[in-house]
Amino acid sequence: MSLINDLHWRYATKKMTGEKVSQDKIEYILEAARLAPSSSGLQPYEIFVISNPTLLEKLKPYSFNQEQITQCSHLLVWAAWDSYSLEKIEKEFNYILSERGLPLTQMDDYKKLLWGMYEPLGAEWHAIHTAKQAYISFSMAIAAAAEQKVDATPMEGFDPQAYDQILGMKEKGLKTAVILPIGYRDSGNDWNENLKKVRRPMDQLVTEME
Amino acid sequence: MSLINDLHWRYATKKMTGEKVSQDKIEYILEAARLAPSSSGLQPYEIFVISNPTLLEKLKPYSFNQEQITQCSHLLVWAAWDSYSLEKIEKEFNYILSERGLPLTQMDDYKKLLWGMYEPLGAEWHAIHTAKQAYISFSMAIAAAAEQKVDATPMEGFDPQAYDQILGMKEKGLKTAVILPIGYRDSGNDWNENLKKVRRPMDQLVTEME
Repeated sequence: MSLINDLHWRYATKKMTGEKVSQDKIEYILEAARLAPSSSGLQPYEIFVISNPTLLEKLKPYSFNQEQITQCSHLLVWAAWDSYSLEKIEKEFNYILSERGLPLTQMDDYKKLLWGMYEPLGAEWHAIHTAKQAYISFSMAIAAAAEQKVDATPMEGFDPQAYDQILGMKEKGLKTAVILPIGYRDSGNDWNENLKKVRRPMDQLVTEME
Repeated sequence: MSLINDLHWRYATKKMTGEKVSQDKIEYILEAARLAPSSSGLQPYEIFVISNPTLLEKLKPYSFNQEQITQCSHLLVWAAWDSYSLEKIEKEFNYILSERGLPLTQMDDYKKLLWGMYEPLGAEWHAIHTAKQAYISFSMAIAAAAEQKVDATPMEGFDPQAYDQILGMKEKGLKTAVILPIGYRDSGNDWNENLKKVRRPMDQLVTEME
């Protein structure tokens, strides 16, 4: 099955059955999210996996009451670092270097260059930048779910402040970026299931520059 | 070939051969980018495909002089809408509805709801939001390139203002968001080719919330 076929198969599932996705498939989807590239390899986000019905019920009113929040098997929540710091960068670089068996001084120049760029940009810019990295991982999870024939609903329609509060993100130095309920479509009962997938025609999306 | 295998195969290619990627593969990668989901289906971005050597040479100094800008086969540039407007939303919704054979009034309530949320958030917020949608598409292109055994270098290391100016983005109501040189690795000569791929361990990236 190719990615293009998978992308045709998937759609933003609005009604799910509650059926559980197997642990194997959950792990596959999370592994794709983990392998996503990120700026300087920092992976400046964490992923939370929620299947507790009480917690999902609590999040639902802050998700425009959308049914897939409680009908999904698992809700995946990407939360991005609220800011960069030299310490955070150092920690990740040290881990990368140690895994590669390289001296921990090897990225010192790059670390200084990077922090020299990031520091003056400030925490607000940092949070936007870290969230963008989370979106790359989020997109890989969407592709992985479709490959596993697991339905998913890419969602920005939620109250990030409420999520942050309920999930204790602030204390973790994180901000909720984007969410993905995964599960199984309630086939025949989902109004969005059979609507034609529409995307802008190629010639209105893509321009070749000569 | 599975997505996970593809993600293991790929790496941020720092040295490319200049060999051309076939038109079939380019179209495959762009089709994956086109099929990516976006908030409310608006696809608030455009993709520019650059293979002209003079133009690539011109962009290189604004890309930290990174060699892959001129050694790639094609440079893909995602540029996101600089702002939302009721007219832009209407145009996309009308296209979706017409493709689905539905009355153009069908999304009137949703259109008003959406613009009611977006308008007060202002153009700066809009541009961040549209760029995030571009990242979803960008990530699908990375996955598609890997599936096609086409190398790619996800890049944020460039001067977006310079890109905007050289590529005339402002006049198009766009802002350069992120870029992806695609081509073929110069195997044996790329320092990044054989470094171990390091990602944060699953238990430090993912938290199950009970």
